[in-house]
Amino acid sequence: VLGIRFESSHRLSLTRQLCAQLRRQIESGQLQEGFRLPPTRKMAAELSISRNVVMESYEQLMAEGYLISRVGAGTFVAGGIKENANRIAVGNEKPVSGQDDVREDVVDFIAGAPDLALFPRKKWGKYLQQAVIDGDPALFDYGDIRGDIELREAIVDYLFRMKGIQCRSEQIIIVSGSAEGFLLLSKALSADFHSLYIEEPTVDFIRDIFKHMNYRLIPVPVDRHGMDVESMDQWELGHLVLVTPSHQFPTGSVLSIQRRQRIIEMAERAGNYIMEDDYDSEFRFKGIPIPPLQTLAPSRVIHVGTFSKTLSPGMRIGYLVIPNQLVETVAAMKEQLHLHTPPILQRALARFIRDGHLDRHIYRMKAIYKQKRAYLVDQLHESFGEELTVHGDEAGMHVQVEFMKCGAMEVPWKDAIHYGVNVHSFGAYSLLPDMHPGKLVFGYGHLRLDEIRLGIQRLKQFMAEHLPTIQDKKHSG
Amino acid sequence: VLGIRFESSHRLSLTRQLCAQLRRQIESGQLQEGFRLPPTRKMAAELSISRNVVMESYEQLMAEGYLISRVGAGTFVAGGIKENANRIAVGNEKPVSGQDDVREDVVDFIAGAPDLALFPRKKWGKYLQQAVIDGDPALFDYGDIRGDIELREAIVDYLFRMKGIQCRSEQIIIVSGSAEGFLLLSKALSADFHSLYIEEPTVDFIRDIFKHMNYRLIPVPVDRHGMDVESMDQWELGHLVLVTPSHQFPTGSVLSIQRRQRIIEMAERAGNYIMEDDYDSEFRFKGIPIPPLQTLAPSRVIHVGTFSKTLSPGMRIGYLVIPNQLVETVAAMKEQLHLHTPPILQRALARFIRDGHLDRHIYRMKAIYKQKRAYLVDQLHESFGEELTVHGDEAGMHVQVEFMKCGAMEVPWKDAIHYGVNVHSFGAYSLLPDMHPGKLVFGYGHLRLDEIRLGIQRLKQFMAEHLPTIQDKKHSG
Repeated sequence: VLGIRFESSHRLSLTRQLCAQLRRQIESGQLQEGFRLPPTRKMAAELSISRNVVMESYEQLMAEGYLISRVGAGTFVAGGIKENANRIAVGNEKPVSGQDDVREDVVDFIAGAPDLALFPRKKWGKYLQQAVIDGDPALFDYGDIRGDIELREAIVDYLFRMKGIQCRSEQIIIVSGSAEGFLLLSKALSADFHSLYIEEPTVDFIRDIFKHMNYRLIPVPVDRHGMDVESMDQWELGHLVLVTPSHQFPTGSVLSIQRRQRIIEMAERAGNYIMEDDYDSEFRFKGIPIPPLQTLAPSRVIHVGTFSKTLSPGMRIGYLVIPNQLVETVAAMKEQLHLHTPPILQRALARFIRDGHLDRHIYRMKAIYKQKRAYLVDQLHESFGEELTVHGDEAGMHVQVEFMKCGAMEVPWKDAIHYGVNVHSFGAYSLLPDMHPGKLVFGYGHLRLDEIRLGIQRLKQFMAEHLPTIQDKKHSG
Repeated sequence: VLGIRFESSHRLSLTRQLCAQLRRQIESGQLQEGFRLPPTRKMAAELSISRNVVMESYEQLMAEGYLISRVGAGTFVAGGIKENANRIAVGNEKPVSGQDDVREDVVDFIAGAPDLALFPRKKWGKYLQQAVIDGDPALFDYGDIRGDIELREAIVDYLFRMKGIQCRSEQIIIVSGSAEGFLLLSKALSADFHSLYIEEPTVDFIRDIFKHMNYRLIPVPVDRHGMDVESMDQWELGHLVLVTPSHQFPTGSVLSIQRRQRIIEMAERAGNYIMEDDYDSEFRFKGIPIPPLQTLAPSRVIHVGTFSKTLSPGMRIGYLVIPNQLVETVAAMKEQLHLHTPPILQRALARFIRDGHLDRHIYRMKAIYKQKRAYLVDQLHESFGEELTVHGDEAGMHVQVEFMKCGAMEVPWKDAIHYGVNVHSFGAYSLLPDMHPGKLVFGYGHLRLDEIRLGIQRLKQFMAEHLPTIQDKKHSG
């Protein structure tokens, strides 16, 4: 009847198969408007299926508008349905172009990647499971828009212990990574702000977020004392500033106290806000962590922190420390954009921190990163001698490397990948072109010592062929 | 010396205490520019602390710009630091206003909240822990911008099984809940689109997201066949449409096949896209799930799904099924906005689905929600008789309730909270004012049967005092 066939091995139920076939016949015009379908009993008998299946299918297709029922007369194909012979899923076919072919063992000196092989996975797995099993059902809901209260309290303690920040849990807003934090701030502050001073060079993704949120970006040069605050001459109302005071990315410099005071003075005078991106101040190898800018002016500085470097980027948890007068504005925008972080993750992290595991992990990783950094710097000097200098404060997971002999020469750094090593020039982090020839940022947190050595050897080969002068100098030296 | 005092019981190290006190003295002007600090050996002896602590502190404060060192002369307070007597954390003080006082046992008929007490927490905890312990270290990194490949493949199978969607894993993009999906789409499509047709009424948060992303919102009325597509007369290029075809929110109607075909025809003609918000089609109590709009036009429809209803909102995982020609655009914007979902959660969910636990949970909850729905409808009819009608397809976790006698009367529904029950009128979901007097949406997924009964009793008390006519009618009836 009606050419309907069932496949018993089909993954779909009989009702779904019947509905699908009837829909197709109606859409293809095989069954026309006004066509009377067989009564359910007859249809069931002819197809050797349960009458319930037929009744269910008819009801379903009535709900969807394919069929109509006339009392006492039966079930008919409805009107107003256009023929659609070609229901093939044309949108489903073309494959997406894949990745480029590159050798698999490339050593990538990308910055900002922690050593994930040493992530305390067993412990973290236990805390996650425990949070799921112990937790109130409310932990499976969206939760407090500002974030889990236990995590906010754990962060208040952590911030005092690690960074010397004194704040209350009401000022903390949990975000799914600092990127979400900046997205949130860009919208929450958009009523009053439309321009952003950023360091030149600076981390690319934050810059992109503000650009997409329609901010005008104004680059401010960076030197070995951090952002050159004085060059922001016209700082009127409506300007935000984004700064990495503890460890400038990618140069690694520290914002001096004189500039810190000056930038706060400027913010206070103009009624503006400073966003302090503190992505890795926990990893300072020399001395103690530098007090965040936030501690100098809690009512003008929004401190943005993350667990991406101290634990793992895949955690997707960061936090904002917000001046009181902004808390409700930011929380309200978070609610309106419906930005929530999984409460179970937050609760597990709260207890992980409370039990001291985060501090222990940071302490352990600090020693490891310090060793990797020393090894990288040794390898660089051994391979390139006086051809390069290493800049940047002794902190974090990256150094700035400057190849002196490059001068204004454009080096095709991206081609190094064909030698099995990926290096990153300042170009990717710059708004202005060609400002930093010969300057590279080397991340090392995620690399083993043997990988660091291999990567530098390969870079040497690359340089030998692309910058013969350097190699010549070495040979003769 | 210099009035420095240590507290041995202090939570901070001696180095940090010494740095903090020296900073404060410099900032307060007690130590002026050019002041020569005691040599480290002398300072250490006078303070009875290790010389290392003093050396570390001096070095730290030099890095921060507070001190300078002159070879052969000693260590001096640097210049250019302004006095800052008032370093009290003024931004840290004012408390944020708390929640309003409401009785704690309020029965809230909020829509869209699943029954989280029945979330399979033991199983989920096991899967999470296993994913953490088994997983590649890469699972702790950001991961593929489109989402974990195992999860995308599990969703491809799930979509075919549950909704009849045929697609490839390359078309799936994982998002942190459908809200993030809409935020992403609003930006990814913003080069070509600036207006959005939305159902009136519709779910509030999606509307808010597009509004904040600077879209012009154009409300389109909804009747019992869903969105009134024909009233979108001028559908030119540059318009998106957001529709809930399987189960309109909040009315519960199903978009008819005639309107489905019409809207697709319009989208194809104008080169526009339709965003299909399929938030709960899995929970259809009568018949089988309705085929998504996506199956009719995979190249024009972006299907947006979520696990917030089937599992839990706190999961923060949703997915987009994207036409091929848009995949790279959307993935590139996701990368630029740096939107990532924790890979560990994704992997755990992939395996949870693959092992059949999601399907089983949905099957189980469907029976439970069906029972709750029937009970709610009974209670409503028992308490209010013919004063109300219940609309909406037999699906999901909410019904539309219309109090007929309200007419054009404004009922202060929010005041019901003082009777211990929270009900939600269509107002919150409407762009246009006063269109739906007397219409409410009742969510019931999260309520126990006794809570439903209590809530309806309280609503009856409220109505008795605010709409005496209804109560009179009941008394005489």
